This record gives sequence, C-alpha cells and structure tokens, in this order.
Amino acid sequence: MKVIIVYDVNIERITTIRKILKQYLSWVQNSAFEGELTEGRLEELKSRLYEVIDPNTDSIIVYTISNPRWVDKRVWGVEKGGTDNIL
Amino acid sequence: MKVIIVYDVNIERITTIRKILKQYLSWVQNSAFEGELTEGRLEELKSRLYEVIDPNTDSIIVYTISNPRWVDKRVWGVEKGGTDNIL
Repeated sequence: MKVIIVYDVNIERITTIRKILKQYLSWVQNSAFEGELTEGRLEELKSRLYEVIDPNTDSIIVYTISNPRWVDKRVWGVEKGGTDNIL
Repeated sequence: MKVIIVYDVNIERITTIRKILKQYLSWVQNSAFEGELTEGRLEELKSRLYEVIDPNTDSIIVYTISNPRWVDKRVWGVEKGGTDNIL
C-alpha cells in the first residue's frame, strides 16, 4: 500500500526519526516521506518510532492508500525529494 | 477528491501561504493541510499560491485521491490538527 508520512516533532528528535524513516520510505520534503509498505512493515516502523517520540508532544500523521495507483502527486515549485523517490 | 498538501517554503512566506491554504483546507500539522476540493478549486488554489511562492526554492507537494474513502489516516503521538479537521 501507498504510505505518506508527515511529522511535526521536537527538534532534538528529528535526526533520529529521519534515520528510521529513511529505512522504510523515501524523503520527499522537509517533514514528509512517502513510499510503499506492507501493513507488517508499517507496524514495525510504528513500534520503532514509538521508542523515540514523546507521544504527548510529537505528532506523526500516516496516510495509507491501499492501491498506489489511486494517488496522484503534483509538485508546485521545486521538487526536493531525492532521486530514489519511487512515486 | 481528497487533497493532502505538504509544503517546505521560505520562512518569510510561511504565514502568507498558510493564510491562503486555510481558505481551502484544514491545517493538520506544522506544514501539512488536508481536505476535500474539486479540481477547479485546486487549480484556483494553485494560481493563488504561485503568486506568492518562489518556484525555484519553495516546494509544495499535492497528493490527490479521487475517492476520499480510499484514504486511511492514523496519528501516532499527539494530533495537532484543529477541531475543524474534517477527515
């Protein structure tokens, strides 16, 4: 399934959280990652992130779409994602 | 259609861009908005934002999903969106 993650976390945890996310998804923008994961991998990612975040102050939003073809992506302005951006 | 917008723009333009986005979508996180728009309203939003952004440095990613029911949303940690968050 298609996964889009946006996060708003304490600056002290950003680097650690990004390192974890990069093992599962592609960085596309300052606080956004995207890619395709199984439900199992997403649950694994969730538990790894919960070891790092403060659930009372940090916020991670996870959008999932079962069929990646149902998602259209447009970029206004410059595209910041890396070349390994798989969408 | 369901619209998710994430943006990474110059700090001088953030307030203006947020004010425009708030007229079309709901703020859900530091640099993320979501909601439902017609293609026409999305094009209108695009032209208004292009009057403000520097397309060479600012980045706005727009994900659209034609059927809002195809999108699942999970929040890990705290939910930062306002109560007018319609998802």
